[in-house]
Amino acid sequence: MILESAVINIKPGQETAFEAAMRTARPFIAASHGFIDMKLQRCIETPNRYVLLVKWRTLEDHKVGFRQSDRYQEWRKLLHHFYDPAPVVEHYDSPIPL
Amino acid sequence: MILESAVINIKPGQETAFEAAMRTARPFIAASHGFIDMKLQRCIETPNRYVLLVKWRTLEDHKVGFRQSDRYQEWRKLLHHFYDPAPVVEHYDSPIPL
Repeated sequence: MILESAVINIKPGQETAFEAAMRTARPFIAASHGFIDMKLQRCIETPNRYVLLVKWRTLEDHKVGFRQSDRYQEWRKLLHHFYDPAPVVEHYDSPIPL
Repeated sequence: MILESAVINIKPGQETAFEAAMRTARPFIAASHGFIDMKLQRCIETPNRYVLLVKWRTLEDHKVGFRQSDRYQEWRKLLHHFYDPAPVVEHYDSPIPL
């Protein structure tokens, strides 16, 4: 299992619309093969910032299965106009046993 | 419940020692009032980068209860010499219902 993490900065004042758009967009990502779970959480220090944390079975499930799908184009249409700037997306391996 | 998120860049080559130090350091944070869970995950794109995700009951449990404790001084001693640069720590509210 891998974790996709994206810190998303949106245009200030558009928080409510962005959260509503995320609700509309969720089924497009959640229908992907290898999608496990996603969480959207709002930053306390910077209120127009969010973190999107998506659990995927494999890196390819995100980068190929979702990113190269028609569903990703729908996701983009719903969300990308809120971003300022475009978010940096990173992937993290399974939690290290501590 | 709130999420503490820290993207941690460490000196390249010190990954194994850093992970071992995190195992030693974990009890110092886990003993804190309001500590719920922590995960350390290694970045796939940038191998000397990690994300530390800590769930706390409240923001104060982290910022006051842990950060102002003697246990935080122990945590610092074990970990801070790996950081390059010092990580940015942010806090996020509970997941938004999607």
